[in-house]
Amino acid sequence: MNNNSSHPLDEALALVPTTDGRLRGRTSELYWNMVGPFGGATAAVMLNSIFQSKERVGDPVALTVNYLSMVKEGEFVIEARLLRSNRTNQHWSILMIQDEGREIVTSAIAIFGARRPTWSLNEAVRPAVGARETYERFQPRNVMRWPLMYDLRYARGDVRQQNDDSITHAWIADAEPRPLDFLSLTAFCDTFLPRIYMRRPLMVPVGTVSLNIYFHADTDGLAAHGTGPVLGVAQGQGFHKGYFDHHGQMWGGEKLLATTQQLVWFKE
Amino acid sequence: MNNNSSHPLDEALALVPTTDGRLRGRTSELYWNMVGPFGGATAAVMLNSIFQSKERVGDPVALTVNYLSMVKEGEFVIEARLLRSNRTNQHWSILMIQDEGREIVTSAIAIFGARRPTWSLNEAVRPAVGARETYERFQPRNVMRWPLMYDLRYARGDVRQQNDDSITHAWIADAEPRPLDFLSLTAFCDTFLPRIYMRRPLMVPVGTVSLNIYFHADTDGLAAHGTGPVLGVAQGQGFHKGYFDHHGQMWGGEKLLATTQQLVWFKE
Repeated sequence: MNNNSSHPLDEALALVPTTDGRLRGRTSELYWNMVGPFGGATAAVMLNSIFQSKERVGDPVALTVNYLSMVKEGEFVIEARLLRSNRTNQHWSILMIQDEGREIVTSAIAIFGARRPTWSLNEAVRPAVGARETYERFQPRNVMRWPLMYDLRYARGDVRQQNDDSITHAWIADAEPRPLDFLSLTAFCDTFLPRIYMRRPLMVPVGTVSLNIYFHADTDGLAAHGTGPVLGVAQGQGFHKGYFDHHGQMWGGEKLLATTQQLVWFKE
Repeated sequence: MNNNSSHPLDEALALVPTTDGRLRGRTSELYWNMVGPFGGATAAVMLNSIFQSKERVGDPVALTVNYLSMVKEGEFVIEARLLRSNRTNQHWSILMIQDEGREIVTSAIAIFGARRPTWSLNEAVRPAVGARETYERFQPRNVMRWPLMYDLRYARGDVRQQNDDSITHAWIADAEPRPLDFLSLTAFCDTFLPRIYMRRPLMVPVGTVSLNIYFHADTDGLAAHGTGPVLGVAQGQGFHKGYFDHHGQMWGGEKLLATTQQLVWFKE
């Protein structure tokens, strides 16, 4: 999607065309989670497959990524299928496959649209938080690798203690500065730590099963943002019978760049 | 999904197996919108295709429906594909096809899960509203047919005037009482009128492009609800360059039954 190929995110998201019209990529050690890749990198590489297509028209407006099973370390293949191209938008279906075609590990649907000037309004209100520099950078206490790829600073919301709510206000940026685009913004949307750890100090197994993103900014809007941090807001709504959700917003200055939700499986 | 086959919703969602392993259905005049079927009925029939499968295990936990183009009056075929079945969940891909297989008109991905007792918490707060009987039933002023199939009463949020926000608190029920299940709850999630009409009195063309639902209740939880109304909450967050979103909650008494979001295309 961009020419900044020396950035580790771009290396992690790199795709090479195969002879049968698909794309081949490889998981990144740098963006590793506990037992598989960081879900934000997986979501971003699914989206990147559309940017590699000559049929792509417009900007992403909606992306839903379902995590079917653990992505294993090593190679994967992505199949992107253009289901329909309309006058104003395109609908895509995307599969990530491993084990020589035997295992579908990630499934997504995406909508791209030609964005045009219209009436405009932010109804969501950006929370008032201090400048990034006034907060400490998050230092992960466990073995996860991917948080080191980000400069995450929490203005509100400490994990692993019993808070009165699960609201997080987080300054999010690539640790090695990189101009914001749809790929990095997609990955940012999955940097929120599991909401259950905000309400309960108990560490239980969790895993995101579905990530949803609506993009409110277009290519020009993201390019104007540059390398500065994004303010991420997230809050869980319900924790019931093995699943909880959260919904969130990504702010670039006063601009609402994206709204995002996810559903997470948990044990106990 | 249930045996209450005389209810018009069940007639609208009826599916018959084809000889090639797919399902055939037909659009319903009763659930007609302006120029196509009510999107909530389309979403519900996509979900119903999974309930018709012998491979289905568990309850729906996540459903994303992308509306590719106008569903035409008449027959359609649904192809449901089980992408993966894990120990605790199943991942499905669903296509609705018309014109003898030439046009994919709707695409969805869904997750089903085996729900088990766990720690439980509602973080979202149900708004305080009066009893349904204290509000007038919504009478659509235009040609839409589907609102007549519902008993919609707005405790907050009048459409087609310039409100200070787009928050709606709506009592939602089938006009002809029907016990709540995943199909009717899915359709309920699309009964909110477009948020842009809450902020601007101008009537412009709009169309939902993507609907997302996370189910927080399981089969037993919905069955316990019965035929009473659900309280729906919705609010837009951003209206920019041809698209706006909303996010919402569906409450059954004090229980959070579902959280839902959608992205809507608009002109001007």
